[in-house]
Amino acid sequence: MLESFKKHIASRLAFLNSSKLLIAISGGIDSVVLTHLCYKMGLNVALAHCNFNLRGEESDADEAFVLQFAEALDVEVFVENFDTKAYASDGKLSIQMAARELRYRWFEALATQLQFDYVLTAHHADDNLETFLINFTRGTGIEGLIGIPEVNDIFVRPLLPFSSQDILAYAKQNHLTWRDDSSNASTKYLRNKLRHEVIPVLKAINPTLLQNFQTTLNHLNDTIAIVDESMDAFLNKAIDNVSETSMTFKIAAFKEVENIKSYVYETFKIFGFTQWNDIENLLDAQSGKWVSSATHRLIKDRDFLLLSEIENAKPILQVILENASKIETPLGILNFEIVEGPQKSDSKTIFVDKDLLHFPLVIREKEEGDVFFPLGMQGKKKVSKYFKDEKFSLLDKEQARLLCSNNDIVWIIGKRADNRFKVTEKTKTILKITLE
Amino acid sequence: MLESFKKHIASRLAFLNSSKLLIAISGGIDSVVLTHLCYKMGLNVALAHCNFNLRGEESDADEAFVLQFAEALDVEVFVENFDTKAYASDGKLSIQMAARELRYRWFEALATQLQFDYVLTAHHADDNLETFLINFTRGTGIEGLIGIPEVNDIFVRPLLPFSSQDILAYAKQNHLTWRDDSSNASTKYLRNKLRHEVIPVLKAINPTLLQNFQTTLNHLNDTIAIVDESMDAFLNKAIDNVSETSMTFKIAAFKEVENIKSYVYETFKIFGFTQWNDIENLLDAQSGKWVSSATHRLIKDRDFLLLSEIENAKPILQVILENASKIETPLGILNFEIVEGPQKSDSKTIFVDKDLLHFPLVIREKEEGDVFFPLGMQGKKKVSKYFKDEKFSLLDKEQARLLCSNNDIVWIIGKRADNRFKVTEKTKTILKITLE
Repeated sequence: MLESFKKHIASRLAFLNSSKLLIAISGGIDSVVLTHLCYKMGLNVALAHCNFNLRGEESDADEAFVLQFAEALDVEVFVENFDTKAYASDGKLSIQMAARELRYRWFEALATQLQFDYVLTAHHADDNLETFLINFTRGTGIEGLIGIPEVNDIFVRPLLPFSSQDILAYAKQNHLTWRDDSSNASTKYLRNKLRHEVIPVLKAINPTLLQNFQTTLNHLNDTIAIVDESMDAFLNKAIDNVSETSMTFKIAAFKEVENIKSYVYETFKIFGFTQWNDIENLLDAQSGKWVSSATHRLIKDRDFLLLSEIENAKPILQVILENASKIETPLGILNFEIVEGPQKSDSKTIFVDKDLLHFPLVIREKEEGDVFFPLGMQGKKKVSKYFKDEKFSLLDKEQARLLCSNNDIVWIIGKRADNRFKVTEKTKTILKITLE
Repeated sequence: MLESFKKHIASRLAFLNSSKLLIAISGGIDSVVLTHLCYKMGLNVALAHCNFNLRGEESDADEAFVLQFAEALDVEVFVENFDTKAYASDGKLSIQMAARELRYRWFEALATQLQFDYVLTAHHADDNLETFLINFTRGTGIEGLIGIPEVNDIFVRPLLPFSSQDILAYAKQNHLTWRDDSSNASTKYLRNKLRHEVIPVLKAINPTLLQNFQTTLNHLNDTIAIVDESMDAFLNKAIDNVSETSMTFKIAAFKEVENIKSYVYETFKIFGFTQWNDIENLLDAQSGKWVSSATHRLIKDRDFLLLSEIENAKPILQVILENASKIETPLGILNFEIVEGPQKSDSKTIFVDKDLLHFPLVIREKEEGDVFFPLGMQGKKKVSKYFKDEKFSLLDKEQARLLCSNNDIVWIIGKRADNRFKVTEKTKTILKITLE
């Protein structure tokens, strides 16, 4: 394998020869073999090991193993300990996502600070095949079928053409030792089923499965290159405006293409949407109609689709566009009007600093954990506490509606405005909102 | 299943309700269930059964079963007997390909003659999934992963959203009987391995596998729509000229795109090529270089790529473009010159009617079965017979080279010209070819 590894580096990754490289090493067979191959080739490498402290003594034994391995090869090694569980719970991430984020962030920081040109990871052909099959069983698009990129920014995967069988053979031939990772049992279950039950049968059907898979990946990547090129051209025409929190798309651009659905899908797929028919219908819908994903909201606004990011999205009832003047709500009609000079808010009429609002505003019901800053009061208050203090009946509570900007409450409609949006000396544009 | 079948027809294939339909029925469970569903829905159907006479009594029993089934439902039925083996050997086709060709040809003829609007076939979701996996194990591009089209010209597959499980359940519920097909063992081996060993594990990993697969197919089809649209635009620019036997592509068009390889692949993949790097290199190669597939040849000609169809392609040694004036060959230099007035060919110099030639000409060795029409003789002669009559030594035979147009011999170079290309009264352009 050393010979074919050398050939592979020479033909496709020759830039590694003259680079300072950091190898991400877990202590498992793949990263141990990658390290050994790079060492044998005389590449300029150092090692980086993350101890995620998720498996107690086992994690520490992995760390000790990596330190020993580095010493045996006389290669520099960096080790970082993470409190992965705390990071996951702070960021509301799965343990797996948290570990991934910590790992990649640390590698990037190390590379920047210590001038490593590239970080090598030990993904191989079977990883790629398993990822393909996992995505396939879940349902995916072409982007889920094209595998892990060989080079992605500073991350390089030199083992991608090699099978786990190649890697095991090399490890045995070179009398290498490695650590088996018992973690990640749920992913392991899935990958193990594929590895032991599905892939062997596919290989029996076609012994050159992995090479054929490589052919497929190459063709799919070629196809993606064409899609990307034509999407770039399309988005150049379609995008009207981009701000920090939103993007505006011209509906006319979608109407010009032959297959609208395809362009809708390609344009919005990275924003977590799944209701493709609804989005297609949005093109011809009334202004103010919208479709949400877990992270984004797409709103019809005259000749445009307005895409905005939503944090911790809550179910919304209505959307209010920047140019709205009159909106019918279950509580009555809301009027919006730009006015001159500061005036005092009351329960039915509020005056807010328009520049502090992030349009589109939304109207929604109260949700668990809602907090606001009641106008005229110091500090914040739970909306549930406010309801209680104001002696709201159960019906009052159910019928209460919140006017929000980016999930911040602007107004408990018809009841109490929020301090954060009030008119101050700095206000340039005053928006008057009245409940009829 | 009848209800969901009705819904599917109503929502996606409503045109079937007012059409005259022919159902392709083998007697197997899938086509029996399709027939029964259409019958129950009251669609206007007739049946068409092919007896390929490949399994003796079994084939006849299938035919008898279909006749009986049609009578029980009181539905018109057409049966055709084919001598599939003879057709296969005549056309040098596999039995499977021959049966496929015969079947689709007959369906089309029936539909045309008897005014059927559509032909229904019983492909279902598991067929689609198996096809995906088979193509995947062989290595493919996106076109091998998008499944069987629901509607393709007059052919419609109304069972595509339904699984084999749905179909079996319906057959049992309705006490239907059907014939099991023992043929096609090699395909069956492959499909059986997938059906019994791979797909159940994938379904265990994800019980909604078939729905998720449908999602994947939809996304991939969306992607293909974008690729098709941009390839249409690209080919509009790239294609310079199309004749009955060839197409000319502007190399400049390939040089303008971002990812040349992708466009090379998408442009030429339907012509059976596999050497994508060679074709990419052709863009910058000398005029006269070429790459062949089993059916086509792509030749560099100045600023163009010339694609020509080749029947029963034989290995070629050299290619001669229309504008060539001097070509070095192992026999000496060939000179090409347009001349005025008729002159007499001899062994070293021939005069041919240029308009009868299909460029590019090729130079090749003699192959088994080669025949030509010796100039000045009546009728044709085997080249091997000519060699024998002329008392060619073994070395003479080995060194002999044939100048060919579309596989027809123009000249046994330096020896004897062919009658078919000689200059006549009708000749407008005389091409003089000399061997120095």
